[in-house]
Amino acid sequence: MATKRVSLIQSVMAADERYAARIRSVMKERGILLLNLIGSPGAGKTTLLEETLKRCRFSAAVIEGDVATARDAERIAAFGVPVIQINTKGGCHLEANLVLRAFESLQFDKLDVLFIENVGNLVCPAEFDLGEDMKIAVCSTAEGADKPLKYPHLFHTCSAVVLTKKDLLPYIRFDRELFWKDVESLNAKAAKFEIDNLSGDGIDAWLNTVETWLKQKRETQRA
Amino acid sequence: MATKRVSLIQSVMAADERYAARIRSVMKERGILLLNLIGSPGAGKTTLLEETLKRCRFSAAVIEGDVATARDAERIAAFGVPVIQINTKGGCHLEANLVLRAFESLQFDKLDVLFIENVGNLVCPAEFDLGEDMKIAVCSTAEGADKPLKYPHLFHTCSAVVLTKKDLLPYIRFDRELFWKDVESLNAKAAKFEIDNLSGDGIDAWLNTVETWLKQKRETQRA
Repeated sequence: MATKRVSLIQSVMAADERYAARIRSVMKERGILLLNLIGSPGAGKTTLLEETLKRCRFSAAVIEGDVATARDAERIAAFGVPVIQINTKGGCHLEANLVLRAFESLQFDKLDVLFIENVGNLVCPAEFDLGEDMKIAVCSTAEGADKPLKYPHLFHTCSAVVLTKKDLLPYIRFDRELFWKDVESLNAKAAKFEIDNLSGDGIDAWLNTVETWLKQKRETQRA
Repeated sequence: MATKRVSLIQSVMAADERYAARIRSVMKERGILLLNLIGSPGAGKTTLLEETLKRCRFSAAVIEGDVATARDAERIAAFGVPVIQINTKGGCHLEANLVLRAFESLQFDKLDVLFIENVGNLVCPAEFDLGEDMKIAVCSTAEGADKPLKYPHLFHTCSAVVLTKKDLLPYIRFDRELFWKDVESLNAKAAKFEIDNLSGDGIDAWLNTVETWLKQKRETQRA
């Protein structure tokens, strides 16, 4: 039984890898940067997107993944950017085939950056390739400093870690030094950001990095 | 392929149901109350257990589920109660067979309440029966008030909702009325608690309810 299960999961994954490759090819062809935001429920993923959309000079679209409701898509739509809501109806992560289906409703003309906000979950979404250029780990100070070592896979595979809710630091027990030391031990290459979700402090450094990634992607495309 | 997958998952689930039934039978025989704590990473599950163990008049043991590390078990062991750490090594939830294996290392003599702290995840753990008397949803104010409707399954199936980090309310945007209204709409029967994790305010009401559940279980056992 165990062997059968493994082979079955592998073949499902293999199909999904083909979908991810298809996404990667569409994004490359059009020079669109694809970022996959992953974090716990309430980590501040949607707020990070709101602060990004408020200030960014590139054109953006968003795919929202949620178990249920279209609340996050409604928050994003308020910024006048194209947004598609995927409801997984119990599913704990997005898969490439769902993202490809969302593409059918997206206009790619003049699009620079496509953000995917994954289902709120620090475990499962890190396992699935959505054809993204980068996985972004979003983690709030309120979750506690022990999360990188307790949920190592995402922190190990991501290209950036965004620590949100910096404004709560005076009111909680959060060992900031330990948090970044553990992130560093798992992933020395990841870009690191601290964001105050209420004031927007720290967003500029994040935006500059996204712009640099976009520029690099366009240069690779032309090369 | 889809049909094959469903039947396979069902049979794996069926095996797990047998393990869950076995757990339920051991707990019934010994009159032990089994509570399965489920919530996001950083929801305050371990802190809730610490505050509970500090004050409780019943004898308790804890099974800790984590993707990696034994940090939570170390925090619990400081209270001198028996604790078993299960590392799922990537797995996003506990399953009954893992809990049964932990039983091999537990002393059940004179035990009143066994707490299981599930892997930090608001989605997957709600799907798996661990033979518990009750699932307890643990959710922090810092996660935001929209979580019940966005992750309805846990809130629908749990017997109690514990809202933690009440002390952060002055510093965050959290619509308390909306949160409890949505919980009520999903599950009118669930017991409802608000806890200040730092001062321990609200813990007494929670402890009284756990004691009532234990008493009820013992009465059922004798009947």
